[in-house]
Amino acid sequence: MFDIIAFDADDTLWHTEIMFIETQARFRQMLAPWADAPTVDRTLYQTELKGFAEFGYGIKGFALAMVETAIALSGGQIATRDIQRIIDFAREMRRWPVELLDGVQPVVARLAQTHKLMIITKGELIDQESKIARSGLADYFARIEVVSDKTPQTYAALLDRHGIDPARFVMIGNSLRSDILPVLAIGGEAVFVPYRTTWAHEHVADEHNPGGYHEVEHIAQLPALIEELSREQAPRRKRNRRGA
Amino acid sequence: MFDIIAFDADDTLWHTEIMFIETQARFRQMLAPWADAPTVDRTLYQTELKGFAEFGYGIKGFALAMVETAIALSGGQIATRDIQRIIDFAREMRRWPVELLDGVQPVVARLAQTHKLMIITKGELIDQESKIARSGLADYFARIEVVSDKTPQTYAALLDRHGIDPARFVMIGNSLRSDILPVLAIGGEAVFVPYRTTWAHEHVADEHNPGGYHEVEHIAQLPALIEELSREQAPRRKRNRRGA
Repeated sequence: MFDIIAFDADDTLWHTEIMFIETQARFRQMLAPWADAPTVDRTLYQTELKGFAEFGYGIKGFALAMVETAIALSGGQIATRDIQRIIDFAREMRRWPVELLDGVQPVVARLAQTHKLMIITKGELIDQESKIARSGLADYFARIEVVSDKTPQTYAALLDRHGIDPARFVMIGNSLRSDILPVLAIGGEAVFVPYRTTWAHEHVADEHNPGGYHEVEHIAQLPALIEELSREQAPRRKRNRRGA
Repeated sequence: MFDIIAFDADDTLWHTEIMFIETQARFRQMLAPWADAPTVDRTLYQTELKGFAEFGYGIKGFALAMVETAIALSGGQIATRDIQRIIDFAREMRRWPVELLDGVQPVVARLAQTHKLMIITKGELIDQESKIARSGLADYFARIEVVSDKTPQTYAALLDRHGIDPARFVMIGNSLRSDILPVLAIGGEAVFVPYRTTWAHEHVADEHNPGGYHEVEHIAQLPALIEELSREQAPRRKRNRRGA
């Protein structure tokens, strides 16, 4: 039934959020003389949001946002050696080990035997390519696409470029905003696999959730769901498994 | 004869180097209390080189290298408001107007009538996408590929993915290192269109130049060259037009 099963990468195939959380904890400590933790978190998040349009998602944009936040919250008093430390944080993030989520390797290996698999990930090219190479999963994926944002337009253009019918496409990911809703919007199927913590920016308020997607608690449940969906005949009933 | 004519983008289709040159002039002025211009240039270049592996090519990597260079050359004495200014430089670079090189628009429009055109550009995804969109040229290109580096392996993988025979592929660009030599290495044709100034990193010493590529002084000469090459029959004679 599906010509392509596509996976998000960060916090769907491997851990990423934990790296940002740990780095942000060190950043909070650095700014403790000037601001409490909630203020640091809020200001950094707002600076990141402002920066997306210019600097995009990823480690370098995060580093630039930390530098701007540090200067702003310290009233310019932050030591230049601490600014150098922030850049060194970014360097460490780039080298962070790629740790697969529990169950990912066997699930991907199994699905690759029956389906063409694809990665569709947002972020910086050099960073995502490095993680894919280090993940040990590259050979299971027929296509790898790094995109600057995940909107219905991005998905539509990408599927069109690969000659994929949205009705025969399923996207697997941990972000309602990026992996699920835009895919539903163009007539694809989507499976939500929540990550234990999800970055504020990827949260979607409940009222924006149209349902219509599938959900599994653990990626190990994915092959059974794909098999079940493949048995269903068109026109298929869309449903939210959480609600069902 | 060619299934695809591919173009580099920065300093082949539109001016980019000038933006780095102007920004670097302001950066030199900022560091004047601590270092002379050649020292600033040399240190910044070395810091960039070191950063490529971690931070890649592009504006954000350049910004991070400027911050590190400023801290190092000032012995940590650089003011935080100047560090903020460096980040603002990066912001201005992202919004820099896209100015096409002389002759590019009509040449691209003309070649698009007879050939499938492609852009193969190195750099940051969000930045290159924005420039392509603002260039007014997007509709002439059937494929746009942003890559993290341009090596024989990158080109081979990219051509393979698109099902393009290297012998029926020609790459147009201003960098021997990135656009010409790696394409020759995989059996493609390449046309060198020198830019008036070329970044130190993209220079290749003469002894590394194997010849075998074509060269035009101005992109306006490209359609005639493509036509001439298309009339030649295989096996074609490779030659360096500059040497011929």
